[in-house]
Amino acid sequence: MLQMSVKHADLVASSAADVRAAIRSGSYAGHTAGLASGKLQCNLAIIPERFALDFLRFCQRNPKPCPVVGVSDSGDPMLRTLGRDIDIRTDVPKYRIFRDGVLADEVTDISGVWADDLVAVALGCSFTFENALLRSGIPVRHVESGLNVPMFRSNIDLVPAGKFSGQMVVTMRPIPEDQVAQAREISARFPQAHGAPIAVGDPAMIGIADLSRPDWGDAVEIKPGEVPVYWACGVTPQNVLLDAGLPICITHSPGHMLIADVAEDAETTILPTN
Amino acid sequence: MLQMSVKHADLVASSAADVRAAIRSGSYAGHTAGLASGKLQCNLAIIPERFALDFLRFCQRNPKPCPVVGVSDSGDPMLRTLGRDIDIRTDVPKYRIFRDGVLADEVTDISGVWADDLVAVALGCSFTFENALLRSGIPVRHVESGLNVPMFRSNIDLVPAGKFSGQMVVTMRPIPEDQVAQAREISARFPQAHGAPIAVGDPAMIGIADLSRPDWGDAVEIKPGEVPVYWACGVTPQNVLLDAGLPICITHSPGHMLIADVAEDAETTILPTN
Repeated sequence: MLQMSVKHADLVASSAADVRAAIRSGSYAGHTAGLASGKLQCNLAIIPERFALDFLRFCQRNPKPCPVVGVSDSGDPMLRTLGRDIDIRTDVPKYRIFRDGVLADEVTDISGVWADDLVAVALGCSFTFENALLRSGIPVRHVESGLNVPMFRSNIDLVPAGKFSGQMVVTMRPIPEDQVAQAREISARFPQAHGAPIAVGDPAMIGIADLSRPDWGDAVEIKPGEVPVYWACGVTPQNVLLDAGLPICITHSPGHMLIADVAEDAETTILPTN
Repeated sequence: MLQMSVKHADLVASSAADVRAAIRSGSYAGHTAGLASGKLQCNLAIIPERFALDFLRFCQRNPKPCPVVGVSDSGDPMLRTLGRDIDIRTDVPKYRIFRDGVLADEVTDISGVWADDLVAVALGCSFTFENALLRSGIPVRHVESGLNVPMFRSNIDLVPAGKFSGQMVVTMRPIPEDQVAQAREISARFPQAHGAPIAVGDPAMIGIADLSRPDWGDAVEIKPGEVPVYWACGVTPQNVLLDAGLPICITHSPGHMLIADVAEDAETTILPTN
C-alpha cells in the first residue's frame, strides 16, 4: 500500500517518536531542522567493529568536533541509550553509504546493508547550541537566511588514532561583537554539541582563505559590527572516516539527522531508564 | 644508588610534572590528594585491548560514574593527550594488579607487566569538584575530618556493555541544606568529574541501609541541618572490571591517582598541542 507522503510542516509539532515513526514508515525522508524541538539531534557514523575502538579513541581525543552521544552494541541496530525503540536501520530520513571511501549510494533505509559486525556511533550536532543561541536573542545568520551553515576546512590538526587523522572542519556564524562573549558562554554549556567556539575573528588564523567560498554549505553575509565565530563541526568525523577509506561506512545525509528522545539540554545523553 | 624518600609535604608546591618525576624516580609513592593544585587527577584502568571497545561503550553509557578523560593507543604506555611525557608504567604512585578478578599484587611500577596488548584508560575523579566546592565555601566533611570519603554500593543499575555491568557505587557528602542547590550547580560544571549529584536525602531511596557503615572509606558525621548528598563514584568502573574477571586488569591504588597536566576546569581534558 502506498504511504501518503508527509511534509516537514506536518511534523513540526510532532514528538521525536512520531517523527521517527513517519521516517521509519517511509512517509518522510526530508531534513530534520526544527523538528522535535528540544530533543537532541545526532550525526551518524556506522562502521565495522574492527575499526570502532580506534574511532572511539579518535573521538575521545577530539571531543569538540566529535562528541560521542551514543554507541550501539556490535550488530545491534538499536540505539538503546538515546531513546525508546530507535532502530538505526530505518529511523534516519536519509543515509549515505560509502565503500572504500567513495559515495556508493544514498538511501532511506539500510536494513539490507546492516550486518552483524557493524557499530553505530551517534555524535552531537550544532542544532543544539544554535537553538540555545536563538533563545537568547543571538542571531544565527544561516537560519534567518534559510541557508545551510557555511563549513570550512581549517588547518587545525586533529589528534590521530589508528587510521583516523586530518584537520578540523569548522562552521562559521557571524555574531555581533558585543554578543560574542555571551555566545561563547552559552555554547560552552553544550559539550555534547561542539561546546565553545574554537576561534574568533581572522579566518587566516585557522587556515581559511576566503569566507565567501565555504567548502560545504552556503556563504552568509557578515554585517557591519559582526565578527566571524568558528565552531568545531560534525562534518569533521565524516571526512576523517572517508579519508580512512573503510570498506564500508554509513552516515546520515547532511541535515537529515537522527532525532533522539534525550533532551538537548540534559546533563548526559543517556536516557533515564525509569 | 638509594634515592632519598620524598614526603607529601615536600611536594605540595610542586608542578604536576615535578610530582610525576618524583613518582617515576621511585622517591614518592604516597597519596596524591592536595598535590599539583588545579590539575586534573585521574582514576586508572589498564585492560587488554580485546575488552577495550566494550569497556569504552560501558563508560559512554554510564558517563557519571565513568567519565573517560584519556585513552592510550594499544601497547603505547604514553597518555599523550593528558600531559607531556606521562608514562603510565611509572607515573602513578601505586598500582593494583588483578588477575582473573583477584588482587594479585600492589606495586609502584608496572614496567615489567606492561604488554603490547594493553590499553590504559584514565577516568575523572571527585577531587576536581571537591576543590570547587571548597573554593565556594561549601564544607567537605571527610576532607575537614582528615578521613577518606564514604563510599556505598547503591541499587542503581548501570547500563551494561559486553561483560561489564553491575550497580553504581556512590560517595556521600553531608551538605548544609541551604547549600545543596549551589553544590549541585557547581559540581554539574564538571562532567569529566562525575557531574551533579545523582541523589539527595534518604539513603534507602538508592538502596543504602546504613550511612554509618560505608562499603569503602570512612563514615563521616552528618550535622544538624545537613542532608546527605550522593555522587557517582570512580570505584564503580573498578568494581565492574573486577566482577568481569578479566585475565589482567591494573588500577591505581585508592587515593594514589594519576596527575595530568590538564587544568581541572579546562573545557576538555585534551592538552592543547601548541
